[in-house]
Amino acid sequence: MSPIKEIQDITIIGLGNVAWQYSNAMQGLGLNVRCISSRGEIKEEDLKSDLIIIAVSDKAIEEVADKLRINNSILVHTSGSMDMEILKARAENYGVFYPLQTLSKGNDIDFSLIPLCIEASNQEARQRLNTLASKLTPMVYDINSEQRKQLHIAAVFACNFTNHLLGIAKEELDKKNIPFNILFPLIDQTIEKAKLNNPFDVQTGPAIRNDDQVMEIHKSSLEDDEREIYELISEKIKKKDK
Amino acid sequence: MSPIKEIQDITIIGLGNVAWQYSNAMQGLGLNVRCISSRGEIKEEDLKSDLIIIAVSDKAIEEVADKLRINNSILVHTSGSMDMEILKARAENYGVFYPLQTLSKGNDIDFSLIPLCIEASNQEARQRLNTLASKLTPMVYDINSEQRKQLHIAAVFACNFTNHLLGIAKEELDKKNIPFNILFPLIDQTIEKAKLNNPFDVQTGPAIRNDDQVMEIHKSSLEDDEREIYELISEKIKKKDK
Repeated sequence: MSPIKEIQDITIIGLGNVAWQYSNAMQGLGLNVRCISSRGEIKEEDLKSDLIIIAVSDKAIEEVADKLRINNSILVHTSGSMDMEILKARAENYGVFYPLQTLSKGNDIDFSLIPLCIEASNQEARQRLNTLASKLTPMVYDINSEQRKQLHIAAVFACNFTNHLLGIAKEELDKKNIPFNILFPLIDQTIEKAKLNNPFDVQTGPAIRNDDQVMEIHKSSLEDDEREIYELISEKIKKKDK
Repeated sequence: MSPIKEIQDITIIGLGNVAWQYSNAMQGLGLNVRCISSRGEIKEEDLKSDLIIIAVSDKAIEEVADKLRINNSILVHTSGSMDMEILKARAENYGVFYPLQTLSKGNDIDFSLIPLCIEASNQEARQRLNTLASKLTPMVYDINSEQRKQLHIAAVFACNFTNHLLGIAKEELDKKNIPFNILFPLIDQTIEKAKLNNPFDVQTGPAIRNDDQVMEIHKSSLEDDEREIYELISEKIKKKDK
């Protein structure tokens, strides 16, 4: 078995946040990175890199991939929701190189704190992507398309929805001129405890205690939108307890 | 104006988590602390302390207070949900000494990381409670009963409900053998970002992007309970954006 050829030349298609951050980080590793727009014509020489990264919005990936004629390069996308197989017809070696973090342009991100999820169409491509990813972060995971979809669902609950609940909490505090930061120690402890346990096993609050008196007081002072969330999640907390 | 008399002698009524932690911490400050059960007879000499703390469950506070004959001591409860005025008939100086954290018995808590919420029936009692609280933590807040009720509501959303969402996230990951800790960096960043902003202004995810295609895929793979939460919070996220 010959040693795998490390990825040295990279083409990144797209000019958004993920493209920007990958470009920065990979240049920082001393790799040759060229960034091109997905909109214009794509030159043949741009497609001779070891790795071609399509870093565009989910909806645009297939359209961009359709424009590419690829020989030996590995072709990847960076999406959390799209199947790897949408690249199947475009290249022999293909995969996914998905950063599990919200990236924004501007300030450099420390990739060593970001999990990278790798998937590949064959073992050699997987190994080459893994080697590259491991230079960026110790948190490299083999995640197939089905798992990636599931990961995205979990992230919606744990992050997107949690953020909305924190927004409601702040809004409720604002109404009585209470500073949001009074809650930070309790939020921090909640998160730390949930990480160390099955969160369902360390559930606290009026719903799990069946404290209907407190819950009625709370509901009576909430407006419709917040009360609907209060009622539904309280009901689900009680149900999990059974 | 004479200098305020600092609280030296403390009676804690109750043998639960809050009683245990307050007792430990206050003894650590070199104060005289006696702990008594709320169930037996309460002796007159136990009620001659500078401060009497009723640290029992919400429902039991009034029953315990009814047993007390208090002269000059300050009488407080430690509840997040009960009004201060439930102590009005039992003492001239009364108030609330509420720790905004989930306390458990066993390992000593570092009170310097816990906000203490103070309320009092008069200025002198407030000042004496404040002086005591400030020896335990730099985070001392004047919070009246109405604000305390609101704080409790906010904590239910930011902590109890958030914990349930993290439980769902873990459950979804378990289904496909994905380790929960893959999500921790994203969770941490979500919390840090929410603290530094109005969370509604930094909302991310399919709902705020109106990405109905992704949302349909997610919903189709969720079971009923989780799908109901997914639909409701997504709807509220969209609504906040308008």
